[in-house]
Amino acid sequence: FKIAVLAGDGIGPEISVQGVDVMSAVCEKFGHKVSYEYAICGADAIDKVGDPFPEATYQVCKEADAVLFSAVGDPKFDNDPTAKVRPEQGLLAMRKKLGLFANIRPVQTFKCLIHKSPLRAELVENADFICIRELTGGMYFGEKYQDNDKAYDTNYYTRPEIERILKVAFEYAMKRRKHLTVVDKANVLASSRLWRQIAQEMAPNYPEVTTDYMFVDNAAMKMIQEPAFFDVMVTENTFGDILTDEGSVISGSMGLLPSASTGESTPVFEPIHGSWPQAKGLNIANPLAQILSVAMLFEYFDLKEEGALIRKAVDASLDENVRTLEIQVADGAKYGTKEVGQWIVDY
Amino acid sequence: FKIAVLAGDGIGPEISVQGVDVMSAVCEKFGHKVSYEYAICGADAIDKVGDPFPEATYQVCKEADAVLFSAVGDPKFDNDPTAKVRPEQGLLAMRKKLGLFANIRPVQTFKCLIHKSPLRAELVENADFICIRELTGGMYFGEKYQDNDKAYDTNYYTRPEIERILKVAFEYAMKRRKHLTVVDKANVLASSRLWRQIAQEMAPNYPEVTTDYMFVDNAAMKMIQEPAFFDVMVTENTFGDILTDEGSVISGSMGLLPSASTGESTPVFEPIHGSWPQAKGLNIANPLAQILSVAMLFEYFDLKEEGALIRKAVDASLDENVRTLEIQVADGAKYGTKEVGQWIVDY
Ligand SMILES: CC(C)[C@H](C(=O)O)[C@@H](O)C(=O)O
Ligand SMILES: CC(C)[C@H](C(=O)O)[C@@H](O)C(=O)O
Repeated sequence: FKIAVLAGDGIGPEISVQGVDVMSAVCEKFGHKVSYEYAICGADAIDKVGDPFPEATYQVCKEADAVLFSAVGDPKFDNDPTAKVRPEQGLLAMRKKLGLFANIRPVQTFKCLIHKSPLRAELVENADFICIRELTGGMYFGEKYQDNDKAYDTNYYTRPEIERILKVAFEYAMKRRKHLTVVDKANVLASSRLWRQIAQEMAPNYPEVTTDYMFVDNAAMKMIQEPAFFDVMVTENTFGDILTDEGSVISGSMGLLPSASTGESTPVFEPIHGSWPQAKGLNIANPLAQILSVAMLFEYFDLKEEGALIRKAVDASLDENVRTLEIQVADGAKYGTKEVGQWIVDY
Repeated sequence: FKIAVLAGDGIGPEISVQGVDVMSAVCEKFGHKVSYEYAICGADAIDKVGDPFPEATYQVCKEADAVLFSAVGDPKFDNDPTAKVRPEQGLLAMRKKLGLFANIRPVQTFKCLIHKSPLRAELVENADFICIRELTGGMYFGEKYQDNDKAYDTNYYTRPEIERILKVAFEYAMKRRKHLTVVDKANVLASSRLWRQIAQEMAPNYPEVTTDYMFVDNAAMKMIQEPAFFDVMVTENTFGDILTDEGSVISGSMGLLPSASTGESTPVFEPIHGSWPQAKGLNIANPLAQILSVAMLFEYFDLKEEGALIRKAVDASLDENVRTLEIQVADGAKYGTKEVGQWIVDY
């Protein structure tokens, strides 16, 4: 494995180390060779070279087998409306340049954390689904215009863009409970009607998959009322931005959820949480989302045992109360970022 | 009062009658004259004249002081992809023709129904906010295109469109807890940046209002994690479609929530729930959302006592277990649509 490591901002560097250590430990155990190439991104890269996703970083990513990404973002940019470059633009540039058109976000609950869900336990305890978000099209990248009196964004999709993401979704459904929900707003949007039309054309190729269609407003409700309904959900970029975040919060385990972004070139694995600048350097950030993104990395390359071992270690750490502050049980010993990471490595 | 009554489809006609009866009873008590003009819409109007919002209906609405709307929609259209006219188009036509640019949706909990919320009670019991959704702009009405290989929608907003809806929002905030949350995706969308810019220009005119800005993905999470945070929330059409539905479901009282759509011409008052075709004619639909939309109607005309009396009657009916099936307590007597309506009228 040639891994590009992009630690980014805030707690990024701290959790990145834990991901790398777990990656190394698993590679050692299973006899895989692994090497790391470190590169800058986000606010860190703006400070250093004025670009949140510099060309050099892109080259490192392009030549790697996978990217282990942590988090970007710094409040100094949020509070400065005159800033021309922002860390988030690095994210968008990375997605576009690496052709990361499929964002895969498992929404999973952990038994010992169900009480942290804002939903009533009986609703959420059986929730286990995957949100697949199109990541390089739609209003994020369509033609834009803004002056003092008017502005627009264009929600533009082409057939190949829609086909390739739906293919990913149907294939995930085949590997899981064979239930795909295509989320759109076909009663209003032309782009959604094309999505739905293409999904209906493709569905007969996956006769074992039950495919249903849901309007995005209904999906936002259903996810709260009956999250266990979903198996695989697929949607366009903007709707996906909203629904994946909604999904992550209902699980009560937001700090533990990893994600993968895959597409035309090197895939990227990263926690869904942000850079939590306030916690930087305090050794309190939970490294599990980063560590589970390493599990997703192995699974992407069909190395199931490697992935399963990491998941087992994570479950064991939770069961044994080897937990960071925010999920600590009242009388548990206190573990920091490093201690949790080391426990997983030792396991 | 000259009221246009649009009963529409499914349970629409049944709940409409209850709304009208309550309107009449309150007008009688307070000495207001009221007259009703009935007009067709939705699937009913498609069946009769081939148009879900016929010109004649528009004229009736235009000449009225207010529209009392019930619900539109029929499954026979959902299952027929070849149908050229759909009931929902009547809704969109009504919004556009009457210039209903502001959709106001109070998210309110009823103590006795909190256990119906999918959220844990302690999170939702203090939730009390208003979602204000822009209703005649954005992707719903921007330029669209679709062929077999590509499609787009345009999220287009002009300064006057944004200013007038933000004005409504600031004024609501002034009448309430003086906290306005402007929801957008200004880190990605040009249209959102214009929204945010205009909101920032207007905020100094409302120095008593605390105005904050939130990305739509964060708002979708915050609404579940801490709904009591919100007082007044304002957003564009598509985001509003998603967030208002998410908001209504967290209250656990979806069947009880009314809404108002106001703008350039006659305002419209309606329940947020749909036409529930399966319940048509069974006398089981809850008339309270329709009845509370009559309260909103009075309040719109600054007739506070009239509105308050209706709200008091609704609270009393719930307390006395005069409730329709879906919110019936286990040992309560069974009340139908008519019986609940009559109880409120008598009260
Ligand atoms: C930071 C922002 C541009 C980004 C997005 O909207 O895609 C984020 O919200 C996400 O979901 O990864
Ligand atoms: C039926 C549909 C066109 C409509 C909308 O999207 O506005 C509905 O979902 C609503 O929110 O009133």
